[in-house]
Amino acid sequence: MRTAFYISDGTALTSETFGHAILSLFPVKFEHKTLPFVDDDEKARKAVQEINAAFAETNEKPLIFHTFVNPSLKKIILTSDGVSYDFLDHYVEPVQAELGVAAQPKTNRTHGLNQDYNFRIDAINYTLENDDGVSTRNYGEADIILVGASRTGKTPTCIYLALQYGIKAANYPLTEEDMGPIELPYDLKMHRHKLFGLTIDPERLQSIREARRANSRYASIEQCLLEINEIESIFRQEAIPYLNSTHASVEEIAAKIMTTAKLKRHRY
Amino acid sequence: MRTAFYISDGTALTSETFGHAILSLFPVKFEHKTLPFVDDDEKARKAVQEINAAFAETNEKPLIFHTFVNPSLKKIILTSDGVSYDFLDHYVEPVQAELGVAAQPKTNRTHGLNQDYNFRIDAINYTLENDDGVSTRNYGEADIILVGASRTGKTPTCIYLALQYGIKAANYPLTEEDMGPIELPYDLKMHRHKLFGLTIDPERLQSIREARRANSRYASIEQCLLEINEIESIFRQEAIPYLNSTHASVEEIAAKIMTTAKLKRHRY
Repeated sequence: MRTAFYISDGTALTSETFGHAILSLFPVKFEHKTLPFVDDDEKARKAVQEINAAFAETNEKPLIFHTFVNPSLKKIILTSDGVSYDFLDHYVEPVQAELGVAAQPKTNRTHGLNQDYNFRIDAINYTLENDDGVSTRNYGEADIILVGASRTGKTPTCIYLALQYGIKAANYPLTEEDMGPIELPYDLKMHRHKLFGLTIDPERLQSIREARRANSRYASIEQCLLEINEIESIFRQEAIPYLNSTHASVEEIAAKIMTTAKLKRHRY
Repeated sequence: MRTAFYISDGTALTSETFGHAILSLFPVKFEHKTLPFVDDDEKARKAVQEINAAFAETNEKPLIFHTFVNPSLKKIILTSDGVSYDFLDHYVEPVQAELGVAAQPKTNRTHGLNQDYNFRIDAINYTLENDDGVSTRNYGEADIILVGASRTGKTPTCIYLALQYGIKAANYPLTEEDMGPIELPYDLKMHRHKLFGLTIDPERLQSIREARRANSRYASIEQCLLEINEIESIFRQEAIPYLNSTHASVEEIAAKIMTTAKLKRHRY
């Protein structure tokens, strides 16, 4: 199997995204290796040794995705037996020409500490402290409050919204109280403009719940059908925007929520 | 202010990473607009209207970062008044030539559901259920267990490790029991090979704690100094690898932990 290297003098997250986006277009399996923090000549030479070893072992030239800002490190990597792709190569000059401003490259520019960093950490703390309806006291501070049946993906989505976009995302599970019908609690109605619903196909919900509490009433298809029906009709009655998470990843759900709820990311 | 657009028929996360990496090289402020899920001609024409409106308003050509897989959508975007950068343009052909395999573009290839998706969701659930030392029962399943004083960044780092890399990351706060010296509990010693320490400069710790519990003993500089000293000497005595989180983002801490602890990401 051919090896793909993602190398950078920082976290290598940009190199990974770049390389992954390109390689995902090809029906080919790769061995993936990430080498972050390659920030001096010695580490660059060690990276070259690793690349050459992968070539010697597989007899296929490794693909190297990198975003080096330091030209001397880049030069060392280019001496390896791999094929090198630097995505800054093709874009810095045209953007420079368009802006009429010279680039000022520095290391760790994309995933280091910046003015929005504390914002994101605050959002993560908020989200963890307001998970699963533990308290509705801080909903005034929320950017969004996800509601839905238990196990529809509310928590991972909230965490992703906080981490990626700096959004303060609370979530509240809608459940039966004393076996009565499901209702929207008063504390949620007060913040109706911040509510966003998640729903899911009952069959999928059953299989997720079954994995957690096998053979329970909670995981039965009857219960899942009942809850999803009641909750979707609440969403419609109360005009709460909602989406179905069955065939979507947290990244997709979060991006859809950002657009639908017109939330502004806090990142740049 | 000039506008930068990030447009895609999927989540636009790749377009954002791509554009952000390039623009971060320039000392210029932008208004950022992300348009995800532009997946039919009508939405593409609406995007063109938004781009043209931004041009009309600012009199500066908007920069457009996109990764369209569908050529007819791309063609529509190219009719706008913006300057367009497609990062697939320059790389698909050379990679294709090197691999000797034709590209098979499909939408939502990078941030949709794939075989590793459940793995990441399991990791998030594991991480939330094993946060802050609530239980040590499931440490057999952990990929890594972060230890350190309260408020050194353990929880956000664990969540990032789970979400980005699919790592099951538990964390345990080292604290004084009955005012005695800080010790490494037996349950942690059993899993010593999985332990990874986080430390922080006492002054920074003080200011973080002060924001949460002003004027408390917990937030005093004496207490912060004492805890950090005791905990760092435990790390050294027990040969626990550790790093200082003071000047690092969660992305940087996580990438360093991945490398130092030789963890394998579960993603592709």
